Amino acid sequence: MEPIIVKYVDKPSLNAPVLIEGLPGVGNVGKIATEYLKEKLEAKLFVKIFSKYFPPQVLMKGDGTLYLVKNELYYYKNPNGRDLIFLVGDYQGMSAEGQYELSYRVLEIVREFGVKEIFTLGGYGTGQLVDEPRVFGAATDMEFVEEMKKYGVYFSPSDPAGGIVGAAGLLLGLGMELFDMRGVCLMGETSGYFSDPKSALYVLRIVKEYFNLELSLDELEERSKEITEITSQIKEEQKMEMDKKEDLGYIG
Amino acid sequence: MEPIIVKYVDKPSLNAPVLIEGLPGVGNVGKIATEYLKEKLEAKLFVKIFSKYFPPQVLMKGDGTLYLVKNELYYYKNPNGRDLIFLVGDYQGMSAEGQYELSYRVLEIVREFGVKEIFTLGGYGTGQLVDEPRVFGAATDMEFVEEMKKYGVYFSPSDPAGGIVGAAGLLLGLGMELFDMRGVCLMGETSGYFSDPKSALYVLRIVKEYFNLELSLDELEERSKEITEITSQIKEEQKMEMDKKEDLGYIG
Amino acid sequence: MEPIIVKYVDKPSLNAPVLIEGLPGVGNVGKIATEYLKEKLEAKLFVKIFSKYFPPQVLMKGDGTLYLVKNELYYYKNPNGRDLIFLVGDYQGMSAEGQYELSYRVLEIVREFGVKEIFTLGGYGTGQLVDEPRVFGAATDMEFVEEMKKYGVYFSPSDPAGGIVGAAGLLLGLGMELFDMRGVCLMGETSGYFSDPKSALYVLRIVKEYFNLELSLDELEERSKEITEITSQIKEEQKMEMDKKEDLGYIG
Amino acid sequence: MEPIIVKYVDKPSLNAPVLIEGLPGVGNVGKIATEYLKEKLEAKLFVKIFSKYFPPQVLMKGDGTLYLVKNELYYYKNPNGRDLIFLVGDYQGMSAEGQYELSYRVLEIVREFGVKEIFTLGGYGTGQLVDEPRVFGAATDMEFVEEMKKYGVYFSPSDPAGGIVGAAGLLLGLGMELFDMRGVCLMGETSGYFSDPKSALYVLRIVKEYFNLELSLDELEERSKEITEITSQIKEEQKMEMDKKEDLGYIG
Repeated sequence: MEPIIVKYVDKPSLNAPVLIEGLPGVGNVGKIATEYLKEKLEAKLFVKIFSKYFPPQVLMKGDGTLYLVKNELYYYKNPNGRDLIFLVGDYQGMSAEGQYELSYRVLEIVREFGVKEIFTLGGYGTGQLVDEPRVFGAATDMEFVEEMKKYGVYFSPSDPAGGIVGAAGLLLGLGMELFDMRGVCLMGETSGYFSDPKSALYVLRIVKEYFNLELSLDELEERSKEITEITSQIKEEQKMEMDKKEDLGYIG
Repeated sequence: MEPIIVKYVDKPSLNAPVLIEGLPGVGNVGKIATEYLKEKLEAKLFVKIFSKYFPPQVLMKGDGTLYLVKNELYYYKNPNGRDLIFLVGDYQGMSAEGQYELSYRVLEIVREFGVKEIFTLGGYGTGQLVDEPRVFGAATDMEFVEEMKKYGVYFSPSDPAGGIVGAAGLLLGLGMELFDMRGVCLMGETSGYFSDPKSALYVLRIVKEYFNLELSLDELEERSKEITEITSQIKEEQKMEMDKKEDLGYIG
Repeated sequence: MEPIIVKYVDKPSLNAPVLIEGLPGVGNVGKIATEYLKEKLEAKLFVKIFSKYFPPQVLMKGDGTLYLVKNELYYYKNPNGRDLIFLVGDYQGMSAEGQYELSYRVLEIVREFGVKEIFTLGGYGTGQLVDEPRVFGAATDMEFVEEMKKYGVYFSPSDPAGGIVGAAGLLLGLGMELFDMRGVCLMGETSGYFSDPKSALYVLRIVKEYFNLELSLDELEERSKEITEITSQIKEEQKMEMDKKEDLGYIG
Repeated sequence: MEPIIVKYVDKPSLNAPVLIEGLPGVGNVGKIATEYLKEKLEAKLFVKIFSKYFPPQVLMKGDGTLYLVKNELYYYKNPNGRDLIFLVGDYQGMSAEGQYELSYRVLEIVREFGVKEIFTLGGYGTGQLVDEPRVFGAATDMEFVEEMKKYGVYFSPSDPAGGIVGAAGLLLGLGMELFDMRGVCLMGETSGYFSDPKSALYVLRIVKEYFNLELSLDELEERSKEITEITSQIKEEQKMEMDKKEDLGYIG
């Protein structure tokens, strides 16, 4: 068995497409954002990727049928600008080797379709509940840093500490060194404790504006309100807990 | 050394054979069921599979001689219908890579013999002792879902949560995506705490009827009665424990 | 880099040689026994084996120089019978894959020199301190079982429970299935808590007799007396501890 | 993807160059020492090494841009003697296999440039705070042992117990066995609890003298003074703690 098996469902002709990655990760921010894009823009599946670097597992569809875990590429023909390719899936590679092999292979595939720029979407886990998640960035070159600052992306000399692990980092790192591609990683601030549609919303607002997408974010706004409420409740409870302790004359 | 070494003991000519998998797993349900079939139907060994994906181990036969751990294929020429191939063995692959490679190789082998349908047998661990284990199913297509429902197989939108891990899942997932095969996984409900011949019995009743097999299940009925008795005893004890606590005015 | 690198120091012509394996393992019984043979018989180094399946490590010789961890083959031209090849080394392969690959490669090498029989020496860890360690056996065929019984080797239907893990098992398992070789594993009973020259001594007595070796076991007798003394002391202490508890009217 | 990807930035012609390795390790002694050499001597980058044996990670440069984790080779044309090649990087290989493959590949590369001698620099973690760290050595041959003793390198029959793990050991071990190279590992004594520029300083003093380098160690002296102060403080505190306990009539 080849370590990575690529099945082409279609071979579309695309206009200077940009790869947008959103695989599972911290707070599932990238996955939520990219799958939202894929669905709202009615992107078309064109590549399936199976691999021994994924878990040896099938998942249920809910109707009694099953499917093998995989990654997928979808394309979107953008009437207002460059076309988009979305990378989504059930898992990232389970080992360092798998991560490298899968990212490298995705870059080989998208190069065929003319990709020269990459956006990787993810979460930046801070362990803190925040009302207004910032969107942190990391880019392959200073030009991209400056450009993204205009869209409100936050570049910090010390964040993300520890760099970026997984596909969101590797696609950019391998892309710039070995494929002559450039790109940026957008990371929505998130507690990292739960799947975070609110953080995904803040990331998508930037993506929407940058690519000039005709896209309603209403549904994601709705889902993110729930997060706002849960966050408020937890903060309220934490505050009451603190107040009680102060009344008793001590702090835990 | 080749990662997987296949030794053909025989190359039988088979009639539209169906692969039935029963490797070790939850409650050893699949293993018990498939090895029972293999023995009662006096199936013939035709392929031995050795691999570095198995543990580096030999096992004892009981007479002072040893054998290398392996998987095996047996065939059964069914006078009442399609022939059967049984996949049994000491272990499943020990890593994700091993699982993929071994399942892929088994599919390559059985394709040569004309296999287009696969039944994988396993256990569905619920952590609960049950009197009448249900048999859950997961299939590659809706047609197979509908067909198996007629035999009392239970399809649930939420089970098995987490999908199916290991050979029972991969043979179907790889089979449908890369080998144009279809199939179903039958999972007997089991506590998962011990080897469960009763769960295997309920699975085999469906297999026997579906394939119209001349097969006595008496011995397995016998072994499963022991399980019924043990289960009853444990439940009795649990109930007495509960009653005592209630008498004392509290629940643990 | 090739996963396994074989350096031939010499290519001796040997007379129906038998491979004797003694790599590190339970109680280092096999290693002590085989290295004793190698040294007392002044066997000659003819093959060095390096591999990425060993730890990435060099060891110190004591004079300030270092050497890369390895396995080695030595040969002994036996004036009283068949020649012997000894497999010794710093480590066994560190993964299942490494174990398979290394054992397979050793079999390929020794086949070139005419090996058809294999003795693997090891320890059988029982967790118990014993005065007179038995030597357990496991063979590739009944003929060998019967032959070794004459030398006092103990064959048990239930031992070793769990089979034999590592090179001592694989060389026999792969040898019989893929190289048409036969052999036996001799396992000296050992607590498994420390390196056990006494257990090695009991194994070597059988090897010496079987191969009709001109070999003094005196030094090993000496080292094994120390073990006898330590064992006696520990047993004494354990007994006193027990007696005290009985005096106090309970058993821990 | 090739497991190791080598990008040549330049192919300099070098004069009997010596490889000096300083990858991350115990106390980062080797890394601090070699990167100090590289910077002070204004060595030139000529090879980048990417690999799936490194973590799947990009790191931040501090200006919002990122880079893929890697190893690098720099060369220094030494006006006073043999040229030097420095091996530095973000990580060592993450698995035994990765360690072997990477060291082997580095040896292949530097052989092209004429390397026949290797100095690997590292720390020897003793768990103790020391005022005057010794520099321990381990060499491929006795000639090198004798030569390095003249420079104050300390060779001990029992140190480093457990040998040398990782690139510092493998480059020498593989180098001597498979590349006909010789060399020495210099290990600065260090507690191992923190990055230790002082230990690096003591190692560099030997390297500087041996290779007759025009090199100011002032900055490293400065950084190492901080370590001296911290060490003194901790020792002072430990002493006071001890004294207090003694005053109270017991020792913890």
